[in-house]
Amino acid sequence: MGMNMTEKILAKHAGLASVEPGQLITCKLDMVLANDITAPPAIKEFEKIGRPVFDNTKIALVPDHFTPNKDMKTAGLTKAVRDFANANNIVNYFEVGHDAGIEHVILPEKGLVGPGKLTIGADSHTCTYGAVNGFATGVGTTDLAVALATGEAWFKVPQSIKVNLTGKKPKNINGKDVILTLIGMIGVDGALYQSLEFAGPGVAELSMTDRFTIANMAIEAGGKNGIFPFDEKTKEYVEGRVKDYEPVAPDADAKYVRTVEINLSELKPVVAFPHLPGNTKRVEDIGEIKIHQVVIGSCTNGRLEDLAIAAEIMKGHKVHKDVRCIVIPGSQQVYMEALEAGYLKTFIESGAAVSTPTCGPCMGGHMGIMTAGERCVSTTNRNFRGRMGHVDSEVYLAGPHVAAASAILGRIATPEEVE
Amino acid sequence: MGMNMTEKILAKHAGLASVEPGQLITCKLDMVLANDITAPPAIKEFEKIGRPVFDNTKIALVPDHFTPNKDMKTAGLTKAVRDFANANNIVNYFEVGHDAGIEHVILPEKGLVGPGKLTIGADSHTCTYGAVNGFATGVGTTDLAVALATGEAWFKVPQSIKVNLTGKKPKNINGKDVILTLIGMIGVDGALYQSLEFAGPGVAELSMTDRFTIANMAIEAGGKNGIFPFDEKTKEYVEGRVKDYEPVAPDADAKYVRTVEINLSELKPVVAFPHLPGNTKRVEDIGEIKIHQVVIGSCTNGRLEDLAIAAEIMKGHKVHKDVRCIVIPGSQQVYMEALEAGYLKTFIESGAAVSTPTCGPCMGGHMGIMTAGERCVSTTNRNFRGRMGHVDSEVYLAGPHVAAASAILGRIATPEEVE
Repeated sequence: MGMNMTEKILAKHAGLASVEPGQLITCKLDMVLANDITAPPAIKEFEKIGRPVFDNTKIALVPDHFTPNKDMKTAGLTKAVRDFANANNIVNYFEVGHDAGIEHVILPEKGLVGPGKLTIGADSHTCTYGAVNGFATGVGTTDLAVALATGEAWFKVPQSIKVNLTGKKPKNINGKDVILTLIGMIGVDGALYQSLEFAGPGVAELSMTDRFTIANMAIEAGGKNGIFPFDEKTKEYVEGRVKDYEPVAPDADAKYVRTVEINLSELKPVVAFPHLPGNTKRVEDIGEIKIHQVVIGSCTNGRLEDLAIAAEIMKGHKVHKDVRCIVIPGSQQVYMEALEAGYLKTFIESGAAVSTPTCGPCMGGHMGIMTAGERCVSTTNRNFRGRMGHVDSEVYLAGPHVAAASAILGRIATPEEVE
Repeated sequence: MGMNMTEKILAKHAGLASVEPGQLITCKLDMVLANDITAPPAIKEFEKIGRPVFDNTKIALVPDHFTPNKDMKTAGLTKAVRDFANANNIVNYFEVGHDAGIEHVILPEKGLVGPGKLTIGADSHTCTYGAVNGFATGVGTTDLAVALATGEAWFKVPQSIKVNLTGKKPKNINGKDVILTLIGMIGVDGALYQSLEFAGPGVAELSMTDRFTIANMAIEAGGKNGIFPFDEKTKEYVEGRVKDYEPVAPDADAKYVRTVEINLSELKPVVAFPHLPGNTKRVEDIGEIKIHQVVIGSCTNGRLEDLAIAAEIMKGHKVHKDVRCIVIPGSQQVYMEALEAGYLKTFIESGAAVSTPTCGPCMGGHMGIMTAGERCVSTTNRNFRGRMGHVDSEVYLAGPHVAAASAILGRIATPEEVE
């Protein structure tokens, strides 16, 4: 019986010839990740185990949620991570500045995740790395603590959904439209503890940036992980970055519990209304919704191509007077590339604020938190009630194209509406 | 009997031929300033008065202390300012992004303060505008509320100290060395409710950036204000920016309670040790003091020339691995100019984080707050205990040259120590 991509990676890391959905297995881990929110409690649990870290080259610690620190409490959290990294010679500790950035932007950027590799992270959007043909999923504090000591974690092999992509990606459509459309179709529990395996001729239409955005939000459909096949684009991305990778492809008779079809040609720019990522609507259908803030960035849409899309739309235009537009490159490298490409100049000329890399605003951390009655169009991944601040604020999720157009027009808009 | 610069400005705005120290007067105001911390309580008091604002073109409202907002509470403060600005058609409301920035950087930059003008602000560093030959001082909430309604404020005419500057400004010396040296000489109460009037041939040695830094910290010696004479550099700065200005010069027989002499030729790079701005020491004398953070920016040292000084020292070097270096351009305009001059590229290459304009870290607001045991070299203006976070953290005040060198070497250092 054939295996799909997720099953192949899990079987290999469990030292088994094959696995099947529902099976409980223990896997060796290629990379273990935590951030400034999740590492401190995990470190406390780890210390109770009383062993050294399993491998100081296979742990990534990224203070990105509350950095540069907004207050004493978060400075204390970050210091706990820093002290642990120093005490344990953690090679992949990413200090503010210093070629660092948002965890799910920099781990692929630095080649710490890759095809066929298994990564767990104490962050729900760890599933991002499925974009590069790896298995990656979020875990809780206790699992992370054990993984720091043993380099292993247990899994229940998930069932898998095939997402068959067909058609051509139109201009002004990107990965965010694909994933928000998918979640709108299947619901925020549509892939609960299942794997989303992307397939079909439409995959080749998607840039690596599109794929990172899509895999990143697999969890927003309840997915255990999301995974893309390995192709020429993947190869181009990982070559020179990732060592010793082994791509996986699904067998011809791989098992899926169902197939969801998405014809890229039919996609339109979409926005997910409050307060669920599955409340997807076509922007052209929504009427006038005035906004107060726009955030362009995050682990979902903070890569160079995302900023390029936003800059192209904003160039020569001014941010609407009633809008604060906050642009946050996802890493120091993205910042530098965006600077050299002229995007940062465009943002400043337009009247946007350009922040140092952080994932602050997304989960209400800092750098753009809202009070009652405010509305934000955000390229982040969650719009739960109160996610970016007050329970009576609203987050509308969209791609960088819709976010940029909305910043200019002061209402949720399609890129075509910007002259 | 002759008058000095401060007396001339106060007399004119009081409609009097002359004033003398100790006299209580009421003056008409040219500009009234508040920020996101001080405006909200002032607005509440203002509303009790039940009058409209005195002049919607002579009020400047700048949300800069907690922006982009770090939490719901500060978002609420900012919204209160924004709503007031909208309701009262305040022309000089500076929204995040949108050609805004730190209050004391943008008011001169936009020509809202100038020679002979009288400005009050509900912020202690309002005295910055003395750099452009104006009288400017910080006031409390109630005075500000009344000023919003009446356009007037009361003053007790201060005594004045003459600071006589002589000699040549050496390389690697800037305004921060001048003012920290002065405060070290006279103490943090050395000019209590007095005016610091700068004079002498050394004034011509100082750039406008030097003068902004020096005037900015007059309050750190307890000064009511600090003021520079009008010269060719002032003229070059204000021409095209400031409307209807009338420079003031001291009369030959102007009164001063004392004269303090500073020979610029003898200055060395200095640092003010915790926990007072008057704890000034020469960097060459202090031995090895390891640091954890460097902040380059603020209303004191967030101007283009400050960033130029830092970039020149950091170019080709990496920020020390144990240091977070946070560079904060003082305004969107400074950001753009620093980008175009290549300074931002240098900072990112060096491993510094480049923030959007904010004065967050200086008063423990956000963007680089410290926990216990941490030390920061900061180009800001106050190093009181707990100012940038935990009571057991330490702030060392210095200019951008010392801050940049310290970021590279991981200890407090002179610029000459960077190869």
